Parts: sequence; C-alpha cells; structure tokens
Amino acid sequence: MDLKAHIRNVKDFPKPGIMFRDITTLLKNPEAYNYTLEQLLDFVKDKKINKVVGIESRGFIFGSMLAHKLNCGFIPVRKPGKLPAEKVSISYSLEYGEDRLEMHKDAIEPGDKVLVHDDLLATGGTMNAVCQLIEQLGGEIVQVSFIVELSFLNGRDKLKPYDVRSIVNYEDEK
Amino acid sequence: MDLKAHIRNVKDFPKPGIMFRDITTLLKNPEAYNYTLEQLLDFVKDKKINKVVGIESRGFIFGSMLAHKLNCGFIPVRKPGKLPAEKVSISYSLEYGEDRLEMHKDAIEPGDKVLVHDDLLATGGTMNAVCQLIEQLGGEIVQVSFIVELSFLNGRDKLKPYDVRSIVNYEDEK
Repeated sequence: MDLKAHIRNVKDFPKPGIMFRDITTLLKNPEAYNYTLEQLLDFVKDKKINKVVGIESRGFIFGSMLAHKLNCGFIPVRKPGKLPAEKVSISYSLEYGEDRLEMHKDAIEPGDKVLVHDDLLATGGTMNAVCQLIEQLGGEIVQVSFIVELSFLNGRDKLKPYDVRSIVNYEDEK
Repeated sequence: MDLKAHIRNVKDFPKPGIMFRDITTLLKNPEAYNYTLEQLLDFVKDKKINKVVGIESRGFIFGSMLAHKLNCGFIPVRKPGKLPAEKVSISYSLEYGEDRLEMHKDAIEPGDKVLVHDDLLATGGTMNAVCQLIEQLGGEIVQVSFIVELSFLNGRDKLKPYDVRSIVNYEDEK
C-alpha cells in the first residue's frame, strides 16, 4: 500500500515554508490504519518487548495499539504537569527555546525491554530525550519506531545507538 | 476484574481537595488493559458504528484501539492550533475560564454513526462540546464511553440525549 497517498500535505503549517504531513486522513481510513499497524508490528516481530512507550499525544494512537498487540504495558510520556505521581523529567532543545517531558518513575523497571513509538521523526530531539529518560530508569531501548520520517532533518544522527524504523520517508519539503 | 484496584488514587492533584484517578497504573498492566478494552467493546457490541472519535490526549489511548477493533476510522479531537486543515471548533466552560477544541471539517460526514471516547467523565462539559461539534457536521452520536465516571459531578446531566457508558464509578472524592 502506498501510505503517502493517505497522508495529507498541508503547505505552510504551522509556519511559512513548512510542508506539514497530516496523518488524520490516514487514521480516517481503516485499511490504511490497519496497514500502518501491521508494518509497525512487523518491525518488532523477532524482538522481545515488555513495555511500549508512546509520546504525547499522537504517539498514543499507535503506541497503545502496539502495546495491546504485543501484550505489553503501555507507558505514556507526557507534557509537564499532567502526571500525578513521582516523576522523572527531561528538557530538550527545540528550534526556538526548549520543551520538557515527564514520565512516572514507576513506569519503567530495570531490565525492561522497551519499544518507543512516536508518529513523526523530524530532528530526533524529542525521541532522544525520551530514550534518555527510559535509560535513566534502567530500561533497555529495543527499538524506536515512527510512521513518518523527514530524512532531510537528519533525525537518525541523534538516535545512532538505536534500532530506528519508519514506514514512509520524505527526502525534502516538497 | 476489580478495575479500581488498578487505578491509582493521588491525593490533592492537581490541587488541594481533589483525588486524582490515575489510569497509568492500569495501562502498565496488560491484563487490566485488555479487560478495559473488552468492556468498552462490549458496550457497543450490537451497535453499528463507522467512526470513533477520541479526545486529546488520554482519549486517544483506548479510542484508537476501539477504532481498530471495530474496523472504523479514528478521528482525533484536538487542542487549538494542532490540526492543519479546515476545521470546526467549539469553546466550553471550565471551572475557571474556558477551553477550546478543534476537529477537521472532513472528519465527519453526514450520516456517520459515531462512538465518542474519553478516559474520564467529570462535569461532562468537554464531552458535550465534542458531541455538538460532531452533530454540527451531521454525525449521529451512537454512544459516548468512558473508563472512569465521577458521578458526584453529575456529568450525565449534560449528556442526557446520549447513550452514556462507563466501566468504573466513584461516588465521592474518597
């Protein structure tokens, strides 16, 4: 299936010069949706995993389904102030300024085999920060997976130690 | 299964006097997780549904799985500024001030049979606003479902026209 045919391209969003890759059109179509899930599952088919981490909020969509299909626990990584119990947190740089993500301290136990999922790989800053949080708690990153990769932003450079997978790639902003 | 045993109670979060019902402990446990999904599916077992709407961001977790299991499209309702294409939006009152949610205009077609899911029913303000958005686009609300209900906040009063379901209920803040 040509998944790109189900991804909407929106020019100049969220700002001029950016071509936004919108997966809501993919989510609306059950065939494209099921195909995406099968591809993500195929990436981990020979791996031993017991936790799936999804990054707020689009990473929750397929992250939760991957956890269900793999019979794993699902761990949400969230924006500041959302998680109520004892947490670990990490700051990371954005193009302008910085952002912060949090995870419950009891979410990961030492030795956990972790799949981390987000919908889009851009510069890799967010995913790299989340992997650091997981490793800080003693988890082992078995794989990081994405639906969409923007390879012209070189996100894989920041994720070198990991098994990085994506289904569709865009080589430029066109 | 006693699902309450898998929900963590956090005192005074996000502010004094509030007992926060934390489902991250449920999500971490595959048995509790699968049981929750089965219950939500059981609520709609005789219904015809072709779209599942999930409310950002905890509503994405089971909303996406319900869509997958029911072979429906999944529609995310999001906070302002996140959706890139033509939108409808609605404001609704919170305890202090107001909030706003958005949905793509092409997400719902007239005649769509819609299941709306969120994790928690409190005052019902958010869910009521989302149902209005869906009806504005011509969709029919077949059911609204939640994992947790706080019945002492009387959220069902705001959702009277709808088939409202929840798995576990708390009758007070204790």
